[in-house]
Amino acid sequence: MITGNVFANVADNLPDEQIMELLSARNVRIERIVSTGHATALNEWYDQGRAEWVLLLAGSAALIFEGETEPLLLEPGTYVHIDAHVRHRVAWTDQSVPTVWLAIHYQ
Amino acid sequence: MITGNVFANVADNLPDEQIMELLSARNVRIERIVSTGHATALNEWYDQGRAEWVLLLAGSAALIFEGETEPLLLEPGTYVHIDAHVRHRVAWTDQSVPTVWLAIHYQ
Repeated sequence: MITGNVFANVADNLPDEQIMELLSARNVRIERIVSTGHATALNEWYDQGRAEWVLLLAGSAALIFEGETEPLLLEPGTYVHIDAHVRHRVAWTDQSVPTVWLAIHYQ
Repeated sequence: MITGNVFANVADNLPDEQIMELLSARNVRIERIVSTGHATALNEWYDQGRAEWVLLLAGSAALIFEGETEPLLLEPGTYVHIDAHVRHRVAWTDQSVPTVWLAIHYQ
């Protein structure tokens, strides 16, 4: 039995986004991601080979999906399912408090 | 793109635990579970064919694992990985506020 808390040791100010693997199995990987104001570089996109289910646990953020005019605003509790190869980017994350994401990659 | 909020429409008082499927794929199923004081019936155990990764999002709860002397207390942010066929039961869930769980079943 492996246990912990997703809010443990969340840093206030990180040079880069911090990714911590919480579970790794053949068909699923669960990560905690901490962002402190980070965003995807302009004109870059995530284009992932696996589908991803994301849940925002703390802070706030906005995602942009290619071809969509409006960003998706995320607050604590917001989840979003992103199919494989759906291009998206992080427009912004909260500047005042750490943003904690749960990301579930699966196939 | 499918989106929502895990804290939407959380009832204060439910006759039974409420399970809402948030994602169903071949190898993974994600559920939101709301408990309002519910517990596993005495002398009953969960014995699941798939591994489960559980995250407590709101409220509080205690899990008992067969063979363990101490219950595992869960507060917001606590996660626990439960291997397939590891027998466990919910000793109690919060009586004053709804307890919201995220459960990820996978193989």
